[in-house]
Amino acid sequence: MPTLYVAPGACSFGAHVALKALDIPHTIKVVPLRQPDSPIYTVNPQGRVPALVLDDGAVITENSAILPYIADLKPEAGLNAPLGSVDRARIQEWIGFLNSDLHGAFRPLNRPALFHTDEATHDTIRRQGKTRLFQLLDTVEKKVPENAWLVGNRFTVADAYLGVFTRWVRRRDFDWAQWPNLKKFADRFDVHPAVIAAEQAEKAV
Amino acid sequence: MPTLYVAPGACSFGAHVALKALDIPHTIKVVPLRQPDSPIYTVNPQGRVPALVLDDGAVITENSAILPYIADLKPEAGLNAPLGSVDRARIQEWIGFLNSDLHGAFRPLNRPALFHTDEATHDTIRRQGKTRLFQLLDTVEKKVPENAWLVGNRFTVADAYLGVFTRWVRRRDFDWAQWPNLKKFADRFDVHPAVIAAEQAEKAV
Repeated sequence: MPTLYVAPGACSFGAHVALKALDIPHTIKVVPLRQPDSPIYTVNPQGRVPALVLDDGAVITENSAILPYIADLKPEAGLNAPLGSVDRARIQEWIGFLNSDLHGAFRPLNRPALFHTDEATHDTIRRQGKTRLFQLLDTVEKKVPENAWLVGNRFTVADAYLGVFTRWVRRRDFDWAQWPNLKKFADRFDVHPAVIAAEQAEKAV
Repeated sequence: MPTLYVAPGACSFGAHVALKALDIPHTIKVVPLRQPDSPIYTVNPQGRVPALVLDDGAVITENSAILPYIADLKPEAGLNAPLGSVDRARIQEWIGFLNSDLHGAFRPLNRPALFHTDEATHDTIRRQGKTRLFQLLDTVEKKVPENAWLVGNRFTVADAYLGVFTRWVRRRDFDWAQWPNLKKFADRFDVHPAVIAAEQAEKAV
């Protein structure tokens, strides 16, 4: 059975939710990040989660790859869409945008030193980063349906992944009033049975 | 037939190469970027390329979605791999990494003002950005086979996309000696018939 490496609060949560939604046998390994002795380095030299280890030892990294791979383990569950369909492209489009744009937009806020070592610059880097992040959340707000999941009127891996970031927004206590549809999405997400199950599994370890 | 919106020198080149490699009817529309009157805004409000417009008017954005969508138009050509296969995950893993990490790593070098408006900080932002970019290129160098394409011993959309970035490296005149396998990849890529065809098509417009 596949083993998914996750870290508490990290972007690996989406893949964990996907596994729980599919109800297929799997193992979860909760690991710390940015600690030299973390077991994550034994499977992913880059030290990042999620990493999915298959029965033959093959390791798949990157949410863009892991989320559709998990969904395709049980196509009839509809976490992804049929090969060649526009819905399938739409799901991957969401994952791509969240992965390349929205995820990275949290970085100047969390770790400004990545961009400039001088601490005197960090407030401005954080402030500009916040402006950029809010622009992206405005973009997402325009695309999120008011009362439905993102693609095809059912819960897919695109939703599992967007939920990672609505939880990050909630944690930062930003004002949801500017993104009402996103807030509704966040509320729907947080009570989804697979989300509750994944949350409990990460806490239990 | 599908219409692909591209910009000269942009990351849309990979999708263009994929279309040329498949030899399926398509239209290419070359557009400028960051110009308010660019036709790209009529199909993608974010103003970004690539954007793929289908016969029914549906618009697909994001390389993570467009590259596999194009490849799956003609599965027998092998630009992608079968549903559920590890090779398919591996191709998407490459695309995800290139999209979220390598592409973004050029941004501090090209547009430091995105991170800090004060020009006095830009040299440091560029220098730190270059260090980070080189680390990522070191990571790629370790993963690129010496004399083969990235996945499954054949040219796939992962190669079509990596080629975008080896061309960006070549344009900047960085020293290839530190990345010998990547240099070999770049040389193979630049003489691939689909690459030559895409290049000529973008120049002809």
